[in-house]
Amino acid sequence: MKVTRAVRKILDNYESDNPGTKANLARMLMHGKLGGTGKMVILPVDQGFEHGPARSFAPNPAGYDPHYHFQLAVDAGLNAFATPLGMMEAGADSFAGQIPLILKVNSANSLDASGSNKDQAITGTVQDALRLGASAIGFTIYPGSDVAYDMMEEIREMAEEAKAVGLAVVMWSYPRGGNLSKDGETAMDVCAYAAHMAALLGAHIIKVKLPSDYLEQSEAKKVYEAEGIDTSTQAKRVEHVMQSSFNGRRIVVFSGGAKKAENSVFDDAIAIRDGGGNGSIIGRNTFQRPREEALEMLDRIIRIYKGQE
Amino acid sequence: MKVTRAVRKILDNYESDNPGTKANLARMLMHGKLGGTGKMVILPVDQGFEHGPARSFAPNPAGYDPHYHFQLAVDAGLNAFATPLGMMEAGADSFAGQIPLILKVNSANSLDASGSNKDQAITGTVQDALRLGASAIGFTIYPGSDVAYDMMEEIREMAEEAKAVGLAVVMWSYPRGGNLSKDGETAMDVCAYAAHMAALLGAHIIKVKLPSDYLEQSEAKKVYEAEGIDTSTQAKRVEHVMQSSFNGRRIVVFSGGAKKAENSVFDDAIAIRDGGGNGSIIGRNTFQRPREEALEMLDRIIRIYKGQE
Amino acid sequence: MKVTRAVRKILDNYESDNPGTKANLARMLMHGKLGGTGKMVILPVDQGFEHGPARSFAPNPAGYDPHYHFQLAVDAGLNAFATPLGMMEAGADSFAGQIPLILKVNSANSLDASGSNKDQAITGTVQDALRLGASAIGFTIYPGSDVAYDMMEEIREMAEEAKAVGLAVVMWSYPRGGNLSKDGETAMDVCAYAAHMAALLGAHIIKVKLPSDYLEQSEAKKVYEAEGIDTSTQAKRVEHVMQSSFNGRRIVVFSGGAKKAENSVFDDAIAIRDGGGNGSIIGRNTFQRPREEALEMLDRIIRIYKGQE
Amino acid sequence: MKVTRAVRKILDNYESDNPGTKANLARMLMHGKLGGTGKMVILPVDQGFEHGPARSFAPNPAGYDPHYHFQLAVDAGLNAFATPLGMMEAGADSFAGQIPLILKVNSANSLDASGSNKDQAITGTVQDALRLGASAIGFTIYPGSDVAYDMMEEIREMAEEAKAVGLAVVMWSYPRGGNLSKDGETAMDVCAYAAHMAALLGAHIIKVKLPSDYLEQSEAKKVYEAEGIDTSTQAKRVEHVMQSSFNGRRIVVFSGGAKKAENSVFDDAIAIRDGGGNGSIIGRNTFQRPREEALEMLDRIIRIYKGQE
Amino acid sequence: MKVTRAVRKILDNYESDNPGTKANLARMLMHGKLGGTGKMVILPVDQGFEHGPARSFAPNPAGYDPHYHFQLAVDAGLNAFATPLGMMEAGADSFAGQIPLILKVNSANSLDASGSNKDQAITGTVQDALRLGASAIGFTIYPGSDVAYDMMEEIREMAEEAKAVGLAVVMWSYPRGGNLSKDGETAMDVCAYAAHMAALLGAHIIKVKLPSDYLEQSEAKKVYEAEGIDTSTQAKRVEHVMQSSFNGRRIVVFSGGAKKAENSVFDDAIAIRDGGGNGSIIGRNTFQRPREEALEMLDRIIRIYKGQE
Repeated sequence: MKVTRAVRKILDNYESDNPGTKANLARMLMHGKLGGTGKMVILPVDQGFEHGPARSFAPNPAGYDPHYHFQLAVDAGLNAFATPLGMMEAGADSFAGQIPLILKVNSANSLDASGSNKDQAITGTVQDALRLGASAIGFTIYPGSDVAYDMMEEIREMAEEAKAVGLAVVMWSYPRGGNLSKDGETAMDVCAYAAHMAALLGAHIIKVKLPSDYLEQSEAKKVYEAEGIDTSTQAKRVEHVMQSSFNGRRIVVFSGGAKKAENSVFDDAIAIRDGGGNGSIIGRNTFQRPREEALEMLDRIIRIYKGQE
Repeated sequence: MKVTRAVRKILDNYESDNPGTKANLARMLMHGKLGGTGKMVILPVDQGFEHGPARSFAPNPAGYDPHYHFQLAVDAGLNAFATPLGMMEAGADSFAGQIPLILKVNSANSLDASGSNKDQAITGTVQDALRLGASAIGFTIYPGSDVAYDMMEEIREMAEEAKAVGLAVVMWSYPRGGNLSKDGETAMDVCAYAAHMAALLGAHIIKVKLPSDYLEQSEAKKVYEAEGIDTSTQAKRVEHVMQSSFNGRRIVVFSGGAKKAENSVFDDAIAIRDGGGNGSIIGRNTFQRPREEALEMLDRIIRIYKGQE
Repeated sequence: MKVTRAVRKILDNYESDNPGTKANLARMLMHGKLGGTGKMVILPVDQGFEHGPARSFAPNPAGYDPHYHFQLAVDAGLNAFATPLGMMEAGADSFAGQIPLILKVNSANSLDASGSNKDQAITGTVQDALRLGASAIGFTIYPGSDVAYDMMEEIREMAEEAKAVGLAVVMWSYPRGGNLSKDGETAMDVCAYAAHMAALLGAHIIKVKLPSDYLEQSEAKKVYEAEGIDTSTQAKRVEHVMQSSFNGRRIVVFSGGAKKAENSVFDDAIAIRDGGGNGSIIGRNTFQRPREEALEMLDRIIRIYKGQE
Repeated sequence: MKVTRAVRKILDNYESDNPGTKANLARMLMHGKLGGTGKMVILPVDQGFEHGPARSFAPNPAGYDPHYHFQLAVDAGLNAFATPLGMMEAGADSFAGQIPLILKVNSANSLDASGSNKDQAITGTVQDALRLGASAIGFTIYPGSDVAYDMMEEIREMAEEAKAVGLAVVMWSYPRGGNLSKDGETAMDVCAYAAHMAALLGAHIIKVKLPSDYLEQSEAKKVYEAEGIDTSTQAKRVEHVMQSSFNGRRIVVFSGGAKKAENSVFDDAIAIRDGGGNGSIIGRNTFQRPREEALEMLDRIIRIYKGQE
Repeated sequence: MKVTRAVRKILDNYESDNPGTKANLARMLMHGKLGGTGKMVILPVDQGFEHGPARSFAPNPAGYDPHYHFQLAVDAGLNAFATPLGMMEAGADSFAGQIPLILKVNSANSLDASGSNKDQAITGTVQDALRLGASAIGFTIYPGSDVAYDMMEEIREMAEEAKAVGLAVVMWSYPRGGNLSKDGETAMDVCAYAAHMAALLGAHIIKVKLPSDYLEQSEAKKVYEAEGIDTSTQAKRVEHVMQSSFNGRRIVVFSGGAKKAENSVFDDAIAIRDGGGNGSIIGRNTFQRPREEALEMLDRIIRIYKGQE
């Protein structure tokens, strides 16, 4: 498939990367119903690790089977499927070549009792990604955590290795731990900061949460007010995140969070699109719904990104 | 020996593994009286490490000798014998080729005074497993412990190495430490979560304790109640554990715990069988009994798994 | 370009270095409007990591784009541009050969909640510097911090690697953490000590803050008073820092700190020049101003170092 | 020298070891006055590290010289001499080929102020043992200590390396630290447990202290009482330790402790012999006595092991 | 130059070392005015790291320049010059072949706020020593510190590497941290213990402070009193340190401490000589004095060691 001008323009922003990594970015950007548009919808399934199997899959028990998610991502025409080692091992051969894969290489779980030192365990490697045919590795950092520097050093090492073998690097940048307030985790200033740090750490694709209009850090707040940065709408806030990601030189996708009403999901997608974001990474809102309902919802999200709604 | 259809079906679930690892899984699944059925009974002898020699072997002093356990596993027609480095070194040559071996590569002991940071020492390696002719490595994780992520990272590294050289990976997933309650260690939600995490970490064979009907985590409890997950019988609870293990795509065996009445052991086996579990890993209930009594008990357990009782 | 006598004299002080490293030092010393004078002005842009994107770039939003800074350093005729991995990756190819680069290989951020154990995350490597065409690596140490020895050991290892492949090593030596007072961080004795330690650690170029006339350590204070060390003017204090840097055998540049009035910036440059310092490393005072204003300011600073003002 | 049947029988218990390691075990078992009997007396001199030079050598100042101890071990016809790196380096060439050597590769000292986290420093390596011509490495673990798992992981790694190059592995298993009571360090249950863990960790030769008849752990105590384990005499207690060491499949030597009356030393040897132990490792009781007295004492101990007294 | 019998006798004590290491020991022992006598005077300049530049060099500002110290050591006819990485890099080429060098590979500083866990940062390597033409590495351990075992493990590793490439190993053994009293740091028992541990760790040259007649450890005190060890004079105390260093089989030099009256310095040298010590390592007492005064002082010290005063 010939790479479109929209995608070529994005690839050109990754000017230091080798053709292997660019090819894997292209593989994701050219795949599925949004292929060639520069927009992306990704299915992530690591909630079983984060919250446990029942909280993740009991609402739609078909999801206990790893193959269900591969098939959902394929049938919905998504750009990529992101999941940890074991689930990827359980389907990578059956679905080889049908959907670009992102190996999520670290994971946390809700049995963990840590406080300000929130962390994740490394559960996969670049070598695993290669043997499973994945296009990218995915890694979570918790800026603010007492162990944030350790996490950054882990991804630095893995990212260097990934880039050398032509894989792409996706960073989940989720502020957490340390002395961050609960509201601060999704504050406008903190979210833009989180995206900027992921960019500085060398991420190809950045995943952040949709920010609220709250401002956490007093020094930052002064600047937002003095410079009159518009954070009044979700679209404006997305725009500021994109600006903080090297003025749009990096792909940013936004996560959906817990299951919620359909309209809310669509409103998010519209705001991401209008703010210039690259797309959505959306898990529980799809796989916890019945398959047909999920396919319809994903189709409408895709139409939103195509500007058809 | 020709691999049966039941075993072939199980092997097919390990779709990312190389033929070496599948051969070792087949070696265990095709060995002994349950060979070919897809069911397994494994003899583990690491209680000397965990509880000390007298608490483990004084009730049946023949067990002080490592050869006793090799011979017991052979004579009972079990699928495999799992033990730490030193005991395996003491018998691996005498019994070479007579019984598949699982090298238990980490161990705890009861002199340890740790609290929420429960851990184990790594005491063996993939290289040891290879030189001793073992088919698999066995590793314990303590989900919930303050050092659980470290343990996960240890097995991640060892599992990657094991898979590369064609060994199978068995994970003992025992929630412990952190702020888990004592009841929580065997709670239904926690046990299913522990099995699911082992699956996500890439285990080929998962070992968990038989769960109670208690629910530990409040967020999980809401879902169990809202979705009406049936946890009323042991068989139903085993079924939920299997569902949480990639909907039965991973082999799960259940451990027996401390020595107890014979009927209780048989009831457990019946529940495991009826719930779709793959079998039992049973130590003290066998080797602490006189040899003849143990052989009879194991024979009856095997008949249960064969559906002959 | 033929190396000038002034630069040759400086290079001769690095008597243990290989020609590769000397060539990279020469590359920086011979580049731009100050090329050949032995003086340097460097543009550092890592404030987005340290303070967040809005606090760094909102006053002049063009700076959200990495290319802006490359172009500013080129157009102002500076000696080098220093920045972390992601920003360098975003422009290194477009500006290849136009400006010597210093890869800042560790970074802190203001979401970090640490106290006396101030640290930075390693975010780049010598290998990254090589593949991006940089002339040097830059590393921050925090003398005084509870983890200062760890930071020193990190740079020791990276410096050894850098020297072996012909890169130069720039050390940001910023006392912080431990039981240092806020005033102590820029105290005369502490600043001279910080420069001396960077020299002993093998830095080629040392970056310190301009010291105040405050004296922090009581044992040091006695000596400053007994020996009548003149710390009354900024120029004298710069002179003492140079003396503490192997009596001028090492290049020392001074940082500007937060944005301030133009005259203050020029006064600093005059004092650095008069005290025998090698130059300025100046970020926010340039890129937070409109481009034309920044270019004019930098031109005047350069004229000061040339002795033309 | 032809290996005796008694020694061959012992070697056969090390069924997983390579001929190199068996040859080194044979070298120690066939050397000296007890050569060929399966019994051993070893001279250990690491007390200078543990307690300081004056406490160790002032009673017999000839012992300040490393050569004194080599010569003593040679002249007394012992099986081996065990000492840390520096002392071995000081005599290994002069006495090359005259006495089998055990390089003690970790050491503690009495300036150490640790509490429940008792540890030792690694001070030698397998490579050191090879270059000095040693037959074995010796390593101390402190079961019970907060860092016991770390120590076990250290010896696991060194033991794997030692076995690969044909060296034997001697483990000093000394319960200490954690919440062990002082009496508990030599309790019957704890000592048997310590020996058992060393065996499980893959030790060829286990060194423990002679146990008292005290029982430390309540769970163990119940079993000792319920099963009627006889711990009434020193010989019976030695017998139980041998049983706990794979039913005698591993060589166990017992240490003498601080200097004491001659008769007490002889009584210990008689009990070790009668309980089936393999011998003594005896330091201060020999080298703190005048040389002639020490030689006479060692000769009598050897006669005891030969059954001549 | 032909090695003298006195030096050959010393070299023979290092019986496990390769010719490369013996050659480097010979290089130091045969160099300068004391060359061939078996005595040594070494100039150490790492006080800038330990105490800061002004406290070290302001009394004699010529010392800010690294070349000053190289030249002083050369002109005074000393045996060796010891200094950290950066200062050695600044002069190693200019003075190549003029004076044996000891690369001090770890360093502490007085901005460090640690308490019982006194430590040093590793700031140089064996590889650095080789590329700079040094004859030895120098390493400080702090016996008693909470991290003493870590430091011992660091030097163990570096010493193994150094010996393999033919370098000599000098250990600064300075008891500090833990629960040592201030007086205890130079107590007779502690100092002898520190020297003994350095010997056991494999040091070729041991550097300790001159001990006082205080006894720190109660268990040791009993022995000193019971055995009537004479600690009444400085010479006797030096003699006991030599005895504790393998009965004189290891070279021991004594450090001078802070600047003091000339007579006191000479008295120290006389005591070291009379007690059988190998010499002095003397920094501040020389380089803080005017050059001519320092040269005269060093000349007299050398005459003392030659027995000419």
